[in-house]
Amino acid sequence: MSIKEIESRRSVRKYCAQEVEQEKILRLLESARLAPSGSNTQPWQFIIVRSPETKARLAAADHGQTWMLSAPVFIVCIADLCSRVKDTAGIRLDEQSPDEELKQIIRDTAIAMEHILLEAQTQGLSTCWTAWFQQEDVRSVLHLPGDKYVCGIITVGYGDEAPEPRPRKVLEDIVRYETW
Amino acid sequence: MSIKEIESRRSVRKYCAQEVEQEKILRLLESARLAPSGSNTQPWQFIIVRSPETKARLAAADHGQTWMLSAPVFIVCIADLCSRVKDTAGIRLDEQSPDEELKQIIRDTAIAMEHILLEAQTQGLSTCWTAWFQQEDVRSVLHLPGDKYVCGIITVGYGDEAPEPRPRKVLEDIVRYETW
Repeated sequence: MSIKEIESRRSVRKYCAQEVEQEKILRLLESARLAPSGSNTQPWQFIIVRSPETKARLAAADHGQTWMLSAPVFIVCIADLCSRVKDTAGIRLDEQSPDEELKQIIRDTAIAMEHILLEAQTQGLSTCWTAWFQQEDVRSVLHLPGDKYVCGIITVGYGDEAPEPRPRKVLEDIVRYETW
Repeated sequence: MSIKEIESRRSVRKYCAQEVEQEKILRLLESARLAPSGSNTQPWQFIIVRSPETKARLAAADHGQTWMLSAPVFIVCIADLCSRVKDTAGIRLDEQSPDEELKQIIRDTAIAMEHILLEAQTQGLSTCWTAWFQQEDVRSVLHLPGDKYVCGIITVGYGDEAPEPRPRKVLEDIVRYETW
């Protein structure tokens, strides 16, 4: 028996107007809070956005994906460099930053984000992980310091569509034994 | 009710000698196969290692963590740049590579890896996500091409310890509302 949320979850891009209970949002955040991370650094920060104005500006920054606006809640998921680097003064992370630590905090924040996606499925909520933006555009909307890196904006709501599963590679194309 | 695997999973660094059924390994890989990824690119590759010689060389590359050797199976989890970049000739990814696409494939491979960790919990297996290595050291053991980036080596086996939960930050320290 596999984890049913892993099997059943789909990216949903159309939501009902129904609000999302704050208690459920807290459950999602709790699942993220429990995520494992390198050296238990927990390099993640989350911004809950419900304001229509801010959502509109974020969707505009996120390649103008207006479908996002039907979701009552956005969770902006941020990897925080200062969890691993003592002096981040003057740092301004972007898509071309070479830092090793940035790779580590992106990895760890992705784990926590996936917990949110799976937990939402348990809570009867639908989600989509979006990341079609440039750091600077989201940074300016949310007044993020330069040592923060936005890993994604998760739309959250009660789904108003039931997409079919997307195709996946067969196991034989992604698994090897003993060596490359 | 939250996902029980998220709540109960611990990193385990001591394993029983008992072998892990190949059927269970395939369940773990299936959960990884189903993971979401940017534009459904599925940029992951997995190498299943059971050979004691290869495990010893990998543990040596992984900061000499000899505890790893008690695990009967290693799953080496690889982000594959050629899933997003057409011409990867001459590329040799390492910890300082600045590529935007590398950040994306690390993110996506981390999602698939976390599916493996959670699914292992369902299967009664224990795991530890390790990543205390340099790319070049693991690359040479497994003969990996330069456009592959190792996101981690997961140890898998039946646990022989039951660690207490590690501390986590409180929600108030990782959640904000509407803006930074």
